[in-house]
Amino acid sequence: MRLAELSERSGVSTATIKYYLREGLLPPGERVTATQAEYGTEHLRRLRLVRALIQVGRVPVATAREVLRAVDEESGQFERLGAAVFALPHGPEPDERDPVTSRAHGHARELLELLGWEAEPTTPPHRMLVSSLAALLRLGYPCEPRRLLAYGRAAEEIAEVDIGLMAEGFEPGTTQLEAAVALTVLYEPVLLALRRIAHFEESRRRFEGGHGGAGRGPDGAAG
Amino acid sequence: MRLAELSERSGVSTATIKYYLREGLLPPGERVTATQAEYGTEHLRRLRLVRALIQVGRVPVATAREVLRAVDEESGQFERLGAAVFALPHGPEPDERDPVTSRAHGHARELLELLGWEAEPTTPPHRMLVSSLAALLRLGYPCEPRRLLAYGRAAEEIAEVDIGLMAEGFEPGTTQLEAAVALTVLYEPVLLALRRIAHFEESRRRFEGGHGGAGRGPDGAAG
Repeated sequence: MRLAELSERSGVSTATIKYYLREGLLPPGERVTATQAEYGTEHLRRLRLVRALIQVGRVPVATAREVLRAVDEESGQFERLGAAVFALPHGPEPDERDPVTSRAHGHARELLELLGWEAEPTTPPHRMLVSSLAALLRLGYPCEPRRLLAYGRAAEEIAEVDIGLMAEGFEPGTTQLEAAVALTVLYEPVLLALRRIAHFEESRRRFEGGHGGAGRGPDGAAG
Repeated sequence: MRLAELSERSGVSTATIKYYLREGLLPPGERVTATQAEYGTEHLRRLRLVRALIQVGRVPVATAREVLRAVDEESGQFERLGAAVFALPHGPEPDERDPVTSRAHGHARELLELLGWEAEPTTPPHRMLVSSLAALLRLGYPCEPRRLLAYGRAAEEIAEVDIGLMAEGFEPGTTQLEAAVALTVLYEPVLLALRRIAHFEESRRRFEGGHGGAGRGPDGAAG
């Protein structure tokens, strides 16, 4: 397909597509004349992933380029999975000079041991865990490993569904790496929204003594 | 305690505390002389919550003020819980003119029905769910309600732990509303980090055939 059709089918303007091409986020099409190129469905899929990263995940362009480079690299599936997902933003790095951070490392280690996970303590998601535990410790909020075990078990259940989805739920042609990056970026807000809704379900049960009944939602106070 | 001690015990500079006082994020201390005021442990706790919102949760100052106003309001516990948590940022609003959004509303409704939740379809977390489902639909990624059921069940388990923590896990004097806001803002990155780590645990099991063994983590590719 030509640029105009790629734009129409993807819903991304031709100007934006040209920008992504210049920035190396989208591989060049196959040149057919001096001024025209031909694009395939792999361009359509890649464009979708770029939009997921930049528009939905609010990942900076330079970071998106790094993620996509890892997706395209010639190496083992598992290493590329790591490189692609690890290139995503993971929040602030733990401050290793702060003594609270070493307590957070201890908590993280103990939690992963309780869960029976073999995770390396040096990966970006692990550092993200340590820095969020350090924030809790620093502010004096509870984060004992035993209390967080339910979080880990829930994460395990979700990961099982996610990896199953990655293996078979995506449209034919989507590589597992594209699916992995999309899963990380696009499904996180779904999980956070459901947790916030579940908080209301659970507190309604506890504080209102049973069901609140239809029309008695907490939204009356939302203003 | 005086301002200097409040600063020392909270780890927040006196300049920042004065800024929070001016912005109405912290209630004024009890005036003891024309130039000095006395602060109590409730100021220390409030300061902690303000830091959680602004520094960790990256909530804008104006939004933090709205959240704290809701925390302090004189109304029912349950309504205030709604107002406080609903004032937090919830990501982009769903675009109701887009036909994809009505499909997302349908998916959200069906998912909550499957879960047996009574959530109102007008609350901010519900709109957050709809807009994240719309992003998935728009990009052609799978989000059938049955596939997302595991996310909902996991959210339920987490919410049960969270509300239990809210009721008893926080230090004496912390109101349930302060705890609810802190839980939402500070524990979300913990959950996301654990999900990302769990992805690697699960894919190691699937793609590498059993355990990778110590020292064979995915971090080799992290660069």
